[in-house]
Amino acid sequence: MNKPAKAATRTAITPTRAEDFPEWYQQVIKAADMAENSPVRGCMIIKPYGLAIWENMVRIFDPWLKDYGVQNASFPLLIPVSFLSREAEHVDGFAKECAVVTHHRLEAGENGLVPTAKLEEPYVIRPTSETIIGDAMARWIQSYRDLPLKLNQWGNVMRWEMRTRMFLRTSEFFWHEGHCAFENAEGAKSDCLTILDFYEKFFRDYCAFSGFKGVKTPEERFPGADQTYSFESIMQDGKALQAATTHDLGQNFAKSCGIKYQGRDGAEHFVHTTSWAFSTRVIGGLIMMHADDDGLIMPPRIAPQQVVILPVIKDDSSAPQIMEFCSGLAAKLKAQGLAVRLDNRELRTPDKMWDAVKKGIPVRVEIGGREAQDQAVTFVRRDLGRESKTTLSAEAFLQEIGKTMDAIHESMLERSRAFHAENIVEGKTLNDLKDYFAAGKTGLVKVPVELLKEEKLAEVKAEYGLSARNMPFEDEGRKVLIGRAY
Amino acid sequence: MNKPAKAATRTAITPTRAEDFPEWYQQVIKAADMAENSPVRGCMIIKPYGLAIWENMVRIFDPWLKDYGVQNASFPLLIPVSFLSREAEHVDGFAKECAVVTHHRLEAGENGLVPTAKLEEPYVIRPTSETIIGDAMARWIQSYRDLPLKLNQWGNVMRWEMRTRMFLRTSEFFWHEGHCAFENAEGAKSDCLTILDFYEKFFRDYCAFSGFKGVKTPEERFPGADQTYSFESIMQDGKALQAATTHDLGQNFAKSCGIKYQGRDGAEHFVHTTSWAFSTRVIGGLIMMHADDDGLIMPPRIAPQQVVILPVIKDDSSAPQIMEFCSGLAAKLKAQGLAVRLDNRELRTPDKMWDAVKKGIPVRVEIGGREAQDQAVTFVRRDLGRESKTTLSAEAFLQEIGKTMDAIHESMLERSRAFHAENIVEGKTLNDLKDYFAAGKTGLVKVPVELLKEEKLAEVKAEYGLSARNMPFEDEGRKVLIGRAY
Repeated sequence: MNKPAKAATRTAITPTRAEDFPEWYQQVIKAADMAENSPVRGCMIIKPYGLAIWENMVRIFDPWLKDYGVQNASFPLLIPVSFLSREAEHVDGFAKECAVVTHHRLEAGENGLVPTAKLEEPYVIRPTSETIIGDAMARWIQSYRDLPLKLNQWGNVMRWEMRTRMFLRTSEFFWHEGHCAFENAEGAKSDCLTILDFYEKFFRDYCAFSGFKGVKTPEERFPGADQTYSFESIMQDGKALQAATTHDLGQNFAKSCGIKYQGRDGAEHFVHTTSWAFSTRVIGGLIMMHADDDGLIMPPRIAPQQVVILPVIKDDSSAPQIMEFCSGLAAKLKAQGLAVRLDNRELRTPDKMWDAVKKGIPVRVEIGGREAQDQAVTFVRRDLGRESKTTLSAEAFLQEIGKTMDAIHESMLERSRAFHAENIVEGKTLNDLKDYFAAGKTGLVKVPVELLKEEKLAEVKAEYGLSARNMPFEDEGRKVLIGRAY
Repeated sequence: MNKPAKAATRTAITPTRAEDFPEWYQQVIKAADMAENSPVRGCMIIKPYGLAIWENMVRIFDPWLKDYGVQNASFPLLIPVSFLSREAEHVDGFAKECAVVTHHRLEAGENGLVPTAKLEEPYVIRPTSETIIGDAMARWIQSYRDLPLKLNQWGNVMRWEMRTRMFLRTSEFFWHEGHCAFENAEGAKSDCLTILDFYEKFFRDYCAFSGFKGVKTPEERFPGADQTYSFESIMQDGKALQAATTHDLGQNFAKSCGIKYQGRDGAEHFVHTTSWAFSTRVIGGLIMMHADDDGLIMPPRIAPQQVVILPVIKDDSSAPQIMEFCSGLAAKLKAQGLAVRLDNRELRTPDKMWDAVKKGIPVRVEIGGREAQDQAVTFVRRDLGRESKTTLSAEAFLQEIGKTMDAIHESMLERSRAFHAENIVEGKTLNDLKDYFAAGKTGLVKVPVELLKEEKLAEVKAEYGLSARNMPFEDEGRKVLIGRAY
């Protein structure tokens, strides 16, 4: 993993990444005021700064789906229990740990309110919606003219997780779930690959994530899928994060839900379906990919605040001039379409400065008496730290700020690429794999796919907590990446 | 209620409003392909055309809240049952019919999957979030510097409704729920009135709703509120629809949730809270306010499709020219920021025409060989019907389309205003009220507030299914509107 640049300096986050990565992760969330645990087991409260990141993700990604012909729709939060058992593998995968609604009334009892009015058939809060959307598709699709049918839903789902970590694994989480139906296998496969490309573009061009696209091994597939594709990235502790997946469900759900159409040949066929998603988990990935020992570093294109302006007032006489200059600057940045925050809270400047650092705001502007007088802007890039402090004329700053945002994005992406290059090593044999992790190394090992057939692989995976991530496209199915994962 | 313009003509919707208003309502939804009932009791599937209306509402309203200083956040879907009982009136209002989660696992039993792993404390799916947000506010608010705290959540809630109707009353529905905390009563009251103004502006300027703002009578207040304000409109059948409400919760939730702050005086005080909302119910209101016997009529500013272009191809030789002209026109309208649909489905022109009518698309453009040759546009306004058919040069059409949209909006709003004027009558005594409804009339009767104290009012209300809607601001608390309501 990345070594903290200056181990001796006091950091804003305690512990540091090197000292205790999981605890550092929680502290970054707290310091940036992104989320907190709630009184509901395994569920979090997403605070405004955290939710604004998700809102930006939705705002960016949703129009891409619409341009591709996907229509948003909304299906019920509850799923009848009998629906879950329609697809055999799906039952095993999802029917186990979920929130079950069994009653529909509360009445006063001896020790407070008690559930009454038992339901004839219980419901689960959707862990995913294949079965209920499949049920609707069976009604909506009659003929090849109704295909392709491309649907998407932005919403909340719930899985009763035993070990939870904010954003990474929570009982309730937000996601989008796409569900499409096609005439044939080619349509479904092409959909999975197209959406995977959207994901890669989104992660690369907006989240500054390097990573790898590939095919999941059979045992890592989504329950009920013929094929699962994923985009995964390596976090700073060397563990992989599956950032998004697309599933080719073949005709499995079509058969279990009865989704048939009259084909161009006049005969009846089952459709081929897909499903795909990314979730609020990606926000956890942003932290583990980019944050440092001083807190979050937000990629500029999804940052809730791209520029923060701090008025630095040392004596009251210069205050009006400074404030006027700051307001004017904020207005001009806003007019350029940037998300600006003028931090005029009644706090000490160092407190505001550290708040901006911990929130990872890409550019921090400091305006004192000198800047106001000279119509100049002093600013610091969060990704480079205080060594990047620069003073420019306001005019030049405003002219350059778009390029600065791009430069920050590129620099973060480049760092992520370099980290991936360092943290993927090639191996040939099971012993190579074992020796690597036995030596306490982190990252992923790329081995020939033939290793998947070796009996002793299961032992090695169990001993070091490894899993097959995916078979990267770039290796055309010949190799598989193995390592630890979230 | 509005009489259908031409009773003798065949209408696209059967039955008509006059024949059977509730059934007409369901048929409009079906004909416009907005939503359908789901296999989950009381829950609907919102189909793409219906959901697009909600997405437009969110897109328009959300920035107003942000400009006012509201921050979006997300609180858990589940609420511990003990939380619900914290506020006495709130328990009575909300703890009765709700979805109760009692188990967190399903296991295979003799007759399929059965719930296991019983929870120590059950949860309900939130019917509203005052209690869980109050719990968070108690942690987040320490001092007057933390106030005002203005939060909002866009999400789904669930109330186990016995009699459901799509959009108007469903078990699961979408809404936004604002929850704010203030130092004093003035702050809370001002918040309620400011947000109510936002609602009025939204309904008037985007939904083309006339209506009335006012204060609810004590018995119609939100459970746990000191004061409830509402914006209500009268539907075409003369029944009122409460389109949005704001609640001044006083210090009730602050006391039950322990939300205290250190004031400017150094002493500890309870905050004053508010909550406010509108929901997908408003989409039901759009139908009952504006639709006619041929289906939906969408107010242009929230219409998912503002202009539909129908190529009218009579012989194949002119087809390429027509299609080229249509595509060019669509591109130019899109460039002006309009939501355009070029309907090039392989269907008969009358079928496409009726589809556009039933979906209530504000402007329908028909391009045949003559239009393509003359570079002209023939169009029909949905609100005025086929008598409004006009042909303009493409240039003039493109120049005028923005004004046409405004004209449609104004005309729909004016129609709604006229309808409200006709359907609110003044009364003085209980007998006036009784006689009005005994005569089979619909609409609302405005009576002096003193009538609320008359013992026999309850009888009259029960006999005719009436309720006090609100005490309109324009009458400064001296009068109250009484009638039937959704």
